[in-house]
Amino acid sequence: MRVLGVDPGLTRCGIGVVEAVGPRRAVHVASGVVTSSADDDVDQRLLVVATQLDEWLEEQVPDVVAVEQVFAQANVRTVIGTAQVAGLAMLAAARHGIPVATHTPTEVKAAVTGSGRADKAQVQTMVRKILSIDAPIRPVDVSDALALAICHLWRPAGALGGPRRPLGAMTPAQRAWAQAEQAARRNR
Amino acid sequence: MRVLGVDPGLTRCGIGVVEAVGPRRAVHVASGVVTSSADDDVDQRLLVVATQLDEWLEEQVPDVVAVEQVFAQANVRTVIGTAQVAGLAMLAAARHGIPVATHTPTEVKAAVTGSGRADKAQVQTMVRKILSIDAPIRPVDVSDALALAICHLWRPAGALGGPRRPLGAMTPAQRAWAQAEQAARRNR
Repeated sequence: MRVLGVDPGLTRCGIGVVEAVGPRRAVHVASGVVTSSADDDVDQRLLVVATQLDEWLEEQVPDVVAVEQVFAQANVRTVIGTAQVAGLAMLAAARHGIPVATHTPTEVKAAVTGSGRADKAQVQTMVRKILSIDAPIRPVDVSDALALAICHLWRPAGALGGPRRPLGAMTPAQRAWAQAEQAARRNR
Repeated sequence: MRVLGVDPGLTRCGIGVVEAVGPRRAVHVASGVVTSSADDDVDQRLLVVATQLDEWLEEQVPDVVAVEQVFAQANVRTVIGTAQVAGLAMLAAARHGIPVATHTPTEVKAAVTGSGRADKAQVQTMVRKILSIDAPIRPVDVSDALALAICHLWRPAGALGGPRRPLGAMTPAQRAWAQAEQAARRNR
């Protein structure tokens, strides 16, 4: 199973493609950023981003596109552009007939670090460890996108409609994920 | 000049097409709503909305697409979906090579009623008067989209890069519009 993770953003949108090799192993396939210039009009920026997203999907042919869920309470200065790029990513996937999943930042952090409150440095450290990447991953949007893809691969069997697994049968990271997911559901 | 106005929304997106006939006259060309079902997944809803938006652009061939500007401070429950549909409308226009303009709700109200604080009933009354529409326009998203298109047609000569006209040479509605526009700029 190949997952393409999208950390949405209008200026920089992180892309991370990861493939499962066995139940708890994942390999890095490709990653990068989709960018648009703040000097251009918004409609032209959206066109540039949408075109690049289409190219990623056509080159990587993922089984699933995982997009970070955007909340209205996020950074006021950027939330509209972030929501719009998340929308473009979901639309691009739907147009290519690829299933879409969304995960909250808390779920992603819990999946890769075991804690839903981990900071960005901790997420990056674990992403590099999990995917055996030696050099720092820059910009941070790329490691966030890879973390999102790993999160989707490693989601507990109970997530997204499958049969629910008892918390005791999970790894610490999976348990933290399940708890974060339950917390997110309660807050909806 | 033919303007297609978009009042963005994921459940109901208002569309209003208006054409200028002389400097202060506008006629209704077509209007309606683009809808998606809250029972479907977001990616499928965005696909349905994007497909309908493309059909509107291909049928109406507007010279400009005018989209209501979405603010982060708007309704928390719906702002993400609203921002995403505004993004899809801008992307659809850009893909068809049609210029995009955005207007704030205050600018739109001022343009059609003379007051940036007018309520929805007042906007609807003025839209019906301006376009000579006898029956109530339902849902309200449609009259908001028509108001947006009228706003774009009637913007003062100074707006969007043209030469600026002194406030005294404007009609009361144009003056209120220019003042609302200045206020919106200050708040950016």
